[in-house]
Amino acid sequence: MSSRRSSAAREREANAPLEERSRPLAVPGVRTAAVRSGVKPSGDLDLALIDMGQPVAAAAVWTTNELCAPPVTECRERLARDPRVRAVVINSGNANAMTGERGLADARAMIDRVEARCGGPALVLSTGVIGVPLPMDTILSGIDSAAEHLSSTGGDDVAQAMLTTDTCTKTSSRELTLPAADGDPERTVVVSGVAKGSGMIHPSMATMLAVIATDAPLDAQRAQSILRSAVDDSFHTITVDGDTSTNDAVVLLAGGADIAPIPADSVRHQILAAAIHQVANDLALAIVRDGEGASRVAEITVTGSRSDDEARQVARSIAGSSLVKTALAGGDPNWGRILAAAANAGVGLDGERLRLFLGGIEVFAGGVPLEVDQSAVDRAFSGAEVDIELKLGLGTSSTTMYTTDLTKGYVEINSEYTT
Amino acid sequence: MSSRRSSAAREREANAPLEERSRPLAVPGVRTAAVRSGVKPSGDLDLALIDMGQPVAAAAVWTTNELCAPPVTECRERLARDPRVRAVVINSGNANAMTGERGLADARAMIDRVEARCGGPALVLSTGVIGVPLPMDTILSGIDSAAEHLSSTGGDDVAQAMLTTDTCTKTSSRELTLPAADGDPERTVVVSGVAKGSGMIHPSMATMLAVIATDAPLDAQRAQSILRSAVDDSFHTITVDGDTSTNDAVVLLAGGADIAPIPADSVRHQILAAAIHQVANDLALAIVRDGEGASRVAEITVTGSRSDDEARQVARSIAGSSLVKTALAGGDPNWGRILAAAANAGVGLDGERLRLFLGGIEVFAGGVPLEVDQSAVDRAFSGAEVDIELKLGLGTSSTTMYTTDLTKGYVEINSEYTT
Repeated sequence: MSSRRSSAAREREANAPLEERSRPLAVPGVRTAAVRSGVKPSGDLDLALIDMGQPVAAAAVWTTNELCAPPVTECRERLARDPRVRAVVINSGNANAMTGERGLADARAMIDRVEARCGGPALVLSTGVIGVPLPMDTILSGIDSAAEHLSSTGGDDVAQAMLTTDTCTKTSSRELTLPAADGDPERTVVVSGVAKGSGMIHPSMATMLAVIATDAPLDAQRAQSILRSAVDDSFHTITVDGDTSTNDAVVLLAGGADIAPIPADSVRHQILAAAIHQVANDLALAIVRDGEGASRVAEITVTGSRSDDEARQVARSIAGSSLVKTALAGGDPNWGRILAAAANAGVGLDGERLRLFLGGIEVFAGGVPLEVDQSAVDRAFSGAEVDIELKLGLGTSSTTMYTTDLTKGYVEINSEYTT
Repeated sequence: MSSRRSSAAREREANAPLEERSRPLAVPGVRTAAVRSGVKPSGDLDLALIDMGQPVAAAAVWTTNELCAPPVTECRERLARDPRVRAVVINSGNANAMTGERGLADARAMIDRVEARCGGPALVLSTGVIGVPLPMDTILSGIDSAAEHLSSTGGDDVAQAMLTTDTCTKTSSRELTLPAADGDPERTVVVSGVAKGSGMIHPSMATMLAVIATDAPLDAQRAQSILRSAVDDSFHTITVDGDTSTNDAVVLLAGGADIAPIPADSVRHQILAAAIHQVANDLALAIVRDGEGASRVAEITVTGSRSDDEARQVARSIAGSSLVKTALAGGDPNWGRILAAAANAGVGLDGERLRLFLGGIEVFAGGVPLEVDQSAVDRAFSGAEVDIELKLGLGTSSTTMYTTDLTKGYVEINSEYTT
């Protein structure tokens, strides 16, 4: 079952045309497959397998929800023991959450089957309805079938098979050149990720899964450090509805067969870390843009805070406010709600120093609303992307967050879908 | 302008039939009026005046929002200097919030006018749109007109004049007998309150105003202590949308001309405090039942916590979850979302010990969902009032909170109404 391939084969893949390279998970050495296992009643793609070709350094950030699902519990423990992974199986349609001991046994059985098929340590990620035992016959047959169909032609179908209420796939790829270093020649490597997520999106993780793979070799500690920082700057800056889920996970798989390990503080490390940040950021923005029922995304920038944490608290309070989110839905530049939500964060604002800009137009300063061109403000608040900037006037720190509008569509989706 | 009346007149009022007594603010010694000042474009009642007949002990709990409105700033300072109040003016349609120095001057001018008309210290409460200067000519004429129409026939119109997006008035009254004490004979007194509130409802105050009046005399310190505790048990247990506003206030006015002051720790004090708690609770429930767009109210009880605070954190996390609130809207007994929201509070739950009851039916225990009569659970989740009880199994503390469902109606109201 091993798919360890020659460096000649890997060399060919590295020189593949950009068109193919831009396909998700089209990373040298990586093979993927997705199948219709039958977990989803719709018959859509619902099971995906990613095989790195060999055990590679793996890093992960997991949900902070205390009732995390058995797959999360199991994978977290395995990675703590040995942070090397060869394959990841992802199923949608059933989260294997709140399923007790049976759920844990099922997660382990999925991992066992993948390890038997791929020949190396595996992880399992599940998303979908909560509290329903997995149909294990269906799932295990699905794994068998996926293992037989692994290919290196890219994972469009993997991105598809992860989805639940999403309306589109979320992918991002970067090809980058690592300069020659320590006798290792210049290298071209790929960082490519796939993600799912639409509802239950919030800082501290959400109903989302993401896998980012690269053929650039990192040790596990470096991989974890880069991923943690990339997640803070990306997935932790988006909110759809303030809830976190039981299954969230972002996994980074980093490893190439014949590239020299990349030391910390090297130029190669900086270039690679930047690409991983970019891919994570692309995926996070794709998730928030596909927020359940969302018709509009707001970029909320808070500047002039006394600390990063203070900026984040204020930005999160605005981004999470139902009244701000419904004002967004109505395209109503309701600055009073934005300021009231900011003040609700309780960090100690000074109303006289606040300056609020909507679409770049200053609407509030010195404790009072300003005379503005109302039609210009209305226009700024009615596009697909709305810029909100609040200057606190208290310090030099800042942050940016993204939120969706709260629409009737969100209510419709969530009052009719049983998670 | 003084309306100090004889004890004979007050005696007659105390013996008024229950029908009249149940009218809001029909408290012996209290006169009220409400007028159409013209602040509301609709021409509805929008200005109310409550005159206690003499300066009485006043207590208040104000919004915790840092950008509190000028009326709040001004009244808080005045009460800190001298906690005695004779009259309260309330206007709706304009919150006089985020209006800077001019707003402060306007709030003071309203107080000055009421004090000149009623002959004693006054407070002002404002609710409505944010960031628009008050039309002061209109407001001051309204105060003059209200002062000329004060009557002791009850404040149905006061309850009406406070409203903004509310669909009904919120009132509660209790008549109670204070036993003879310290040479003062048995007394019948009234506790009566009016409130407004529909959106921006959340613990730590909300877009709500309430005034509770009683002819039972308390000193200011007792009044504040009773009110603080009553608010914690009532207004702080309800949530509609997680936002707090710039103008929230609950005011207690307590004072009778010829009843002996009520000492702390007396039987009279206990009876009176209980009645004030009941009235506050009635008003809070009336507010949450009239939550913007709400079709359903959930009573969320969390028991078995290690502390009151822990129970409150878990209950608030459930009550504030958009996914729980949309499940409520759909009448969908989605227990997974309730547990995920509880675990999102981050207090340290033990999934194995959790027991969840919907409408009294246990649906989850020992880490797994239970076999249930699904149609019975569906019924329990589709009525106007839904009972959710979560036993944490960690201790002996508990709490109860109330929340509304999140409906398309909520989105409609808040994407179209400029606050």
